[in-house]
Amino acid sequence: MKVSESGEFGLIDALRRLLEGAEGDLVCGAGDDAAVFRDSAGRLWAYTADALVEGVHFMPAYTPWYSLGFKALAVNLSDLAAMGGGGPSYALVVLGLRGEEEVSRMEEMYRGLSDCARRFSCRVAGGDVVHSPERTFLSVSLVGTLEGEGFLARSGARPGQAVLITGTLGDSWLGLQLLMRGGGTDDPCARRHLYPEPRLEEGLAAFRLGATAAIDVSDGLLRDAGHICEESGVGMEIYMESIPISEDARRLAVELGMDPLRAALAGGEDYELVITVDERLAPLLAEKLPATIIGRVTEGEGVVLVDAEGRPFAAPETGYEHFREA
Amino acid sequence: MKVSESGEFGLIDALRRLLEGAEGDLVCGAGDDAAVFRDSAGRLWAYTADALVEGVHFMPAYTPWYSLGFKALAVNLSDLAAMGGGGPSYALVVLGLRGEEEVSRMEEMYRGLSDCARRFSCRVAGGDVVHSPERTFLSVSLVGTLEGEGFLARSGARPGQAVLITGTLGDSWLGLQLLMRGGGTDDPCARRHLYPEPRLEEGLAAFRLGATAAIDVSDGLLRDAGHICEESGVGMEIYMESIPISEDARRLAVELGMDPLRAALAGGEDYELVITVDERLAPLLAEKLPATIIGRVTEGEGVVLVDAEGRPFAAPETGYEHFREA
Repeated sequence: MKVSESGEFGLIDALRRLLEGAEGDLVCGAGDDAAVFRDSAGRLWAYTADALVEGVHFMPAYTPWYSLGFKALAVNLSDLAAMGGGGPSYALVVLGLRGEEEVSRMEEMYRGLSDCARRFSCRVAGGDVVHSPERTFLSVSLVGTLEGEGFLARSGARPGQAVLITGTLGDSWLGLQLLMRGGGTDDPCARRHLYPEPRLEEGLAAFRLGATAAIDVSDGLLRDAGHICEESGVGMEIYMESIPISEDARRLAVELGMDPLRAALAGGEDYELVITVDERLAPLLAEKLPATIIGRVTEGEGVVLVDAEGRPFAAPETGYEHFREA
Repeated sequence: MKVSESGEFGLIDALRRLLEGAEGDLVCGAGDDAAVFRDSAGRLWAYTADALVEGVHFMPAYTPWYSLGFKALAVNLSDLAAMGGGGPSYALVVLGLRGEEEVSRMEEMYRGLSDCARRFSCRVAGGDVVHSPERTFLSVSLVGTLEGEGFLARSGARPGQAVLITGTLGDSWLGLQLLMRGGGTDDPCARRHLYPEPRLEEGLAAFRLGATAAIDVSDGLLRDAGHICEESGVGMEIYMESIPISEDARRLAVELGMDPLRAALAGGEDYELVITVDERLAPLLAEKLPATIIGRVTEGEGVVLVDAEGRPFAAPETGYEHFREA
């Protein structure tokens, strides 16, 4: 069987099984936002890696190199945030280069990396440059201390708990649509796409305030909330009318003739945190992070979108169906 | 200017400068075998990353997938060894896949990774899978404690010190020539190429016995010794007649009609350690690691090969000239 037939998640599961039972003090392994290990002094570390491939994860035509560097690091910091992180971290960058890239562009990219690092208490410690004949790629890894001395796994959600989200959703995806149409990189939504803000303080605060699970939104709210459901063995109801959508996103959606709710539910690359917590603690979290209560954890499985009366949402047109994840 | 015009090392230097002066407790940054940082509890960590690209760093035609996994991790562990490492370590693996790969092959590769990890006190903590349309790649990062509570930088060599090398040189390159000719993977030299052994114990022992600098041999002895010279601001004499060459390498060189000394000096991928140390300590290191004394650190710059009488070696034919690095 070929990789393309098994699907990404099938392959990851198969490879994950091969790594089980190995040596080492691994507290949380493959299958979460980051791996977590405990060092011999008893301290917890989160460790994550991600690669961005030209033409697959970024399009040079509408991705400024500065923002590519910024974002490549930011998405890794977002994984740290989703583990309840917030401590100092270190990153390495492996660059795969065709050779045709302008050196000045690579320097812009590094400035983006460096600026992102400074802003979020990270240090780019070095890396490597290799030849990649067809496509530029960046492979970034990040290791950071978990200041809370504990972490938020995807597997900690329990029926009855509340579901919260930081920030607003859909801005990034709508910003991307604008960029793909040649729109300006100064639009607030475009900036959300190009310069995502890892929610490190919010992740740490959520952990300290008793959150039970977290994930960052990279593939879209419904899909990522679905990962919490799978790992926790629970279901979720998401309150359609509670989804936080910014004024910028609503305005841009009108301009583009698009549905802002759809962007918020399935768009992805928001890098906000989905957090679960005991329902009694939810108002406190909502106030302190801040965050918005957008649903509850249920028995069963999968994410169901519900309307203001708690009824499963019947989409006015086809297309919303795939939002329900089995 | 394009990357291909600036050269790999020119680009790395330019990017390195952009990272200088950033925040964080980085003890040793870009430009050594690994970065070294000190955590808030005062412990030292080495952190390194490397990528292997299909058709550039490995040829599927003569690289078994199992060995590719083993080697991808081993070369990172070798960087840790060259810093004086030897403690527990953690690795992440980002796989770039075309989609046409057989899942069974990917599993073989992971078995190689996993077996290498078990053997050298490393834990593969997870990773990511991304789409890479033309070429399979593996990007491995590794973070590990420096048990010696110190490290061996490339910059520590001083004139008058001795130069040592662990193991033997040239086996890997000769093994590669055999593999490229369709020869068996059971040949001892081919196995040295496919399954390099990171010298973790030797690196730690060298640090504890007072070594001043180290590097692992990936690009060939003369070139890698040259990196110590550049970073330390010194020169080196390498005693041509002291280069350790195994019986296996001599035998295979005869079979292939090749010069074993040339393989030992410039072949690369030996993953042995070049170590410098005060000349009075050199015999002790040579006995304990074990290792072979192969030269001395001099004033000046560059690596010079000398014969038994200490005269710069005049090559009997052209080609040896490029062995001398400016």
